[in-house]
Amino acid sequence: MLSVHLEGGRVEVVKGPRPRRRAGHSLVRLDVAGICNTDLELQRGYYGFRGRPGHEFVGEVVASDTPELTGKRVTGEINLACGRCEWCARGLGRHCPNRTVLGIVRHPGAFAEYLTLPDQNLHVVAGRIPSEHAVFTEPVAAACEILDQVKMRRGEPVAVLGDGKLGLLIAQVLQVSGAKVTLVGRHESKLRIARDAGVSETVVAGAALKRAGFPVVVDATGSREGLAAAVGMVRPRGTVVMKSTIHDAVALDMAPVIVNEITLVGSRCGRFEPAMRMLPKLHLAPLIAARYPLARAPEAFAAAAEKGTLKVLLEGQAASG
Amino acid sequence: MLSVHLEGGRVEVVKGPRPRRRAGHSLVRLDVAGICNTDLELQRGYYGFRGRPGHEFVGEVVASDTPELTGKRVTGEINLACGRCEWCARGLGRHCPNRTVLGIVRHPGAFAEYLTLPDQNLHVVAGRIPSEHAVFTEPVAAACEILDQVKMRRGEPVAVLGDGKLGLLIAQVLQVSGAKVTLVGRHESKLRIARDAGVSETVVAGAALKRAGFPVVVDATGSREGLAAAVGMVRPRGTVVMKSTIHDAVALDMAPVIVNEITLVGSRCGRFEPAMRMLPKLHLAPLIAARYPLARAPEAFAAAAEKGTLKVLLEGQAASG
Repeated sequence: MLSVHLEGGRVEVVKGPRPRRRAGHSLVRLDVAGICNTDLELQRGYYGFRGRPGHEFVGEVVASDTPELTGKRVTGEINLACGRCEWCARGLGRHCPNRTVLGIVRHPGAFAEYLTLPDQNLHVVAGRIPSEHAVFTEPVAAACEILDQVKMRRGEPVAVLGDGKLGLLIAQVLQVSGAKVTLVGRHESKLRIARDAGVSETVVAGAALKRAGFPVVVDATGSREGLAAAVGMVRPRGTVVMKSTIHDAVALDMAPVIVNEITLVGSRCGRFEPAMRMLPKLHLAPLIAARYPLARAPEAFAAAAEKGTLKVLLEGQAASG
Repeated sequence: MLSVHLEGGRVEVVKGPRPRRRAGHSLVRLDVAGICNTDLELQRGYYGFRGRPGHEFVGEVVASDTPELTGKRVTGEINLACGRCEWCARGLGRHCPNRTVLGIVRHPGAFAEYLTLPDQNLHVVAGRIPSEHAVFTEPVAAACEILDQVKMRRGEPVAVLGDGKLGLLIAQVLQVSGAKVTLVGRHESKLRIARDAGVSETVVAGAALKRAGFPVVVDATGSREGLAAAVGMVRPRGTVVMKSTIHDAVALDMAPVIVNEITLVGSRCGRFEPAMRMLPKLHLAPLIAARYPLARAPEAFAAAAEKGTLKVLLEGQAASG
């Protein structure tokens, strides 16, 4: 089968055997996968990565020990937890210290014609949801995670900084969940997507914004400056949600954080169930920038890496013909 | 009357008129005051400070519109809130944007024979509490603030980093409140104070400590390195309480904060009521390093500024004879 191999900054499509399915795992034939910023970081060698990336996917279960999964269209949670530790016992396998992670940590990823995952990680996609929407489940879960971490009242003013893929999803998810969202971004075309999706307010970054005005601010800029900007916009006793994974030290003046008793919350992956319920309520089609067959993954990665590109999808052989 | 004047790094004792008492404010004759690290920072010119410092005090009300206060021994909350804004309406005058702050922001401080504060800021000190203990109310309130911000279960393992004045108070307050505290410090003599006060465990900084082991870690090191050390010691989904006000940018690798979904909570002043209830349960005498009459404030400041010094007290004329 074809799969994508990252090494030394290069993106290659290689031929090799299908992955071996262990007991309790399903073999899934790829329908469609999404390229995430994390994949671009893996390409650059973060986490010392070398291998097969990909963790946003929809596919068909072609072999499984679980009859209810066989033949079904599924997406899957990316953390493979040990099931035996304290974290797993608390339902927080996403933080299991022994976990591997699909396409990120010691488990071959979804940018391949076939992948395997434990049956318990798989979620059947409802028939009415197209695969190109269901492939957003993982990033939508990351957006929904904010709702698990921060209590927001109905109509709560929330600022989301960053109009990239994740920022646009977070703005929609929070708005649909009852917050009054102000999306701050740099691209009129992307802010328009948010407005069309019902986001209350959009503001071009740099415009005069109420300082210290928001009870909750989400930094999804992906930039080193985002956190300081977020701290400047949150009101005393407010919460800044950190969604920008920055791999170098960030310099931040902590004095206002302490004086104003601001809470900074690191936020990563989330649960799939609420994300799947959220999917039909979101405007996802405008977030898709391009589609490529798996065999053209190097072009797809190059397109995804262009500044300002929204979601680039990779299609498995089944989907591409 | 005598009062302390800070300007350009110098500490001077000056003679001048008693402060004028406004309606609704009381005039308080100083019994004893405490020098806090913030006072040392004001001396160095932080916040562009110039004037009369001092915000930890006990004194006697000598003139007031409130008969129940007259003649009473009191301590007082340091934030003078406007009483009209949204924050004040929510009982959070400590964050009132129009506030002045005793000895810090546009309200003359307590390092003087007399000071004034609004009656509503004053709390009568119970007769059995000596003034040299009651003078700790403000920093104890800052320690108690953690209990208002972070939910801790009985027996919750909490690490406190820093065995300075505030670290020793926080360790005691959290231990008394039911947490199982590990105090990490650099000075055996100070760690002994904590052990004598009932703190569960003390560890010399640098010793092998369980990484990612604590649900809650409090950084009270006052150092720029404290926050990174705290992040390294907190478990996934745990909370780091930031009690070290650092006035320059702190460089922190935010990747582990996000991946492990750590919450960083800025923490400052707290309510006086729980602090005053806490006072009799704490070992405060060992925290007093020295006492000076107000007239010898320059020596007192010099002593307080020596590395490793615990609380230095300034005594008003009434107390000193």
